[in-house]
Amino acid sequence: MRDIPHHGHVLDERDIEALEIGSGILGTGGGGNPYIGKLRAREMLRAGAEMRIIPPEALADDAMVVPLGGIGAPLISFERIKEGREGLRCLRALEDRLGFKADAIGCEEIGGQNSMEPLVTAAMAGLPVVDADGMGRAFPEMQMTTYSIYGHRSTPSVMCDPHGNVVAFEHAISELWHERMARACVIAQGGASVLASAPMTGAFMKRYAIPRSYTQAIALGRAVLDARAAHRDPVATICDREGGRHVFSGKITDLTRHFKGGFNVGIAQIEGLDAHRASTAEIVIQNEFLIFRRDGVMEVCVPDLVVVVELDTGLPITTELLRYGQRVAVLALPCHPLLRTPEALEVIGPAAFGHPEITYSPLATTEAPA
Amino acid sequence: MRDIPHHGHVLDERDIEALEIGSGILGTGGGGNPYIGKLRAREMLRAGAEMRIIPPEALADDAMVVPLGGIGAPLISFERIKEGREGLRCLRALEDRLGFKADAIGCEEIGGQNSMEPLVTAAMAGLPVVDADGMGRAFPEMQMTTYSIYGHRSTPSVMCDPHGNVVAFEHAISELWHERMARACVIAQGGASVLASAPMTGAFMKRYAIPRSYTQAIALGRAVLDARAAHRDPVATICDREGGRHVFSGKITDLTRHFKGGFNVGIAQIEGLDAHRASTAEIVIQNEFLIFRRDGVMEVCVPDLVVVVELDTGLPITTELLRYGQRVAVLALPCHPLLRTPEALEVIGPAAFGHPEITYSPLATTEAPA
Repeated sequence: MRDIPHHGHVLDERDIEALEIGSGILGTGGGGNPYIGKLRAREMLRAGAEMRIIPPEALADDAMVVPLGGIGAPLISFERIKEGREGLRCLRALEDRLGFKADAIGCEEIGGQNSMEPLVTAAMAGLPVVDADGMGRAFPEMQMTTYSIYGHRSTPSVMCDPHGNVVAFEHAISELWHERMARACVIAQGGASVLASAPMTGAFMKRYAIPRSYTQAIALGRAVLDARAAHRDPVATICDREGGRHVFSGKITDLTRHFKGGFNVGIAQIEGLDAHRASTAEIVIQNEFLIFRRDGVMEVCVPDLVVVVELDTGLPITTELLRYGQRVAVLALPCHPLLRTPEALEVIGPAAFGHPEITYSPLATTEAPA
Repeated sequence: MRDIPHHGHVLDERDIEALEIGSGILGTGGGGNPYIGKLRAREMLRAGAEMRIIPPEALADDAMVVPLGGIGAPLISFERIKEGREGLRCLRALEDRLGFKADAIGCEEIGGQNSMEPLVTAAMAGLPVVDADGMGRAFPEMQMTTYSIYGHRSTPSVMCDPHGNVVAFEHAISELWHERMARACVIAQGGASVLASAPMTGAFMKRYAIPRSYTQAIALGRAVLDARAAHRDPVATICDREGGRHVFSGKITDLTRHFKGGFNVGIAQIEGLDAHRASTAEIVIQNEFLIFRRDGVMEVCVPDLVVVVELDTGLPITTELLRYGQRVAVLALPCHPLLRTPEALEVIGPAAFGHPEITYSPLATTEAPA
């Protein structure tokens, strides 16, 4: 990462390698496979593209920031090759439609491949990406951003698929209706498109975006790589940096996963290992890991982060890559405070995911383990 | 109907009553329930609206005609009350998007309620409706118009639902892709929206629209009403006027109907009556009546019209109103020649409906029965 005074940071290949890991951890299993995203970003860097991130404070209050990201199911975007310029086509169509020029690209979710999509599109457009996002993690639906929660109307938006189809959601009566229509349409488009939302102002982003997501994710990824190189415990390193807890170690013993309503949904069963030998855990999945239960008792749930990593390497496992027999560590990381307000919990609390029986209480943050 | 030299015809309530029946017959069971459409049109007339149709020849070659109609499943539009101004919102959004003013409204399909939707919207906008349509009947999918078949690109288009949501299909790589995306989206919107397609020129409509659909449907409906008033056989009257055949009389003995992919699909079984006592017939349904088989042998299929009317009254029965025990006459009416060309059959022949085993041969037209 190269610091340019007043112009943010220019990312290099090492940053992208670190971002792959950091965004994979923060992605809680979803947000699109970060490895695929990394390959795309790396190829662009090697072809000479510049990827630059700027802090939210660098934005003028009236700057126009276009948030964008992939929409669909992680499983599909993992198997299906993008055309590559979907994001740029979204941006241009939106600019044409609304008669403005974007000053920067925003990130909807830092988790997974959706951390890379803004970088790739911004590089094509010669624009910076704001070092912030709308989730501080990944969530499966579009209305689940701090942007939407705190009042940004995400329409008009434009969605482009790899075939060349372009759909504009001109007006939605609510953020949830925007999600519903776009979800139906992305399934018809094959399940892996890119969507650019209506521009936000710099002033709005400074107030309601989760700040410093890119630098956080890159630093987190680098810390994991450094821990591994130094033969330190990468799982402890993650918990240390993020104020989280290592809640379970075990082996995946059962896995129900299917494709429903355009989402990857399912349940992973984990049999305890080591200190957790006497216990069994399960994780509820909708694109992301949503809920962690130990011996049938709910322990961690949205909006806090349920993260699954390889027990030995600390490398994140995305939902589509879960396999029988994997030895995993389950981590619980606290979400950003903007995700814990009453208005946020209405949209991203357990009830919003079909679990009204669960009362969310914020994860106790822990000190760095000894 | 009042003739205004050089300004077409102004429709009155009697025309709408006749259109209900005529469009119901040409609708081959679909196109939306024409009774509901009639009520909407009649209320507008009673409130003082003017509904005017103009012949295609009255259009300047560079006139801009916006075709529009309901999209969804007939069953839903029958049970769900429209907000009422969906069509007008589509028209205005399309005009704003493309920077033009429409000179007239076009009809996508003359069948069923979709004959009324253009009249209602045009009356609100103070525009005439072109006396023509894109099907000469009803078909379940959007790409099945002579407009699309003969080269009109129906995007950009705008779809509005009763809630207030507005979606623009900015670009589709094919007419079929437009249909796929709009179909997925209309299901998300609740299954009964209105869609306005990209404008066509007057020159194009004069060449490729099915001409005089409104005057044909109104005259057909009137002929049925007149026959009933004069105690003549209305079924024979329909066949006479349309050059069709009365192929079967019977009683509905079984009915499989379900909602699939946003369509009403199913099969109706009919046990023969009178001269057909020894036979059993079945009709394959996808929103419309598509295929008629007698004793297992295919006799009539798309694009020719399979029409089901009440045996005694000649009044058309739409697919959602079919009931066990109804005594019906099945008529076969020849489609317009524009639907029978090789390029048309690729889109609206039996193979396009999942029946590649059927080879279409045009219905032999018959003389008026004695």
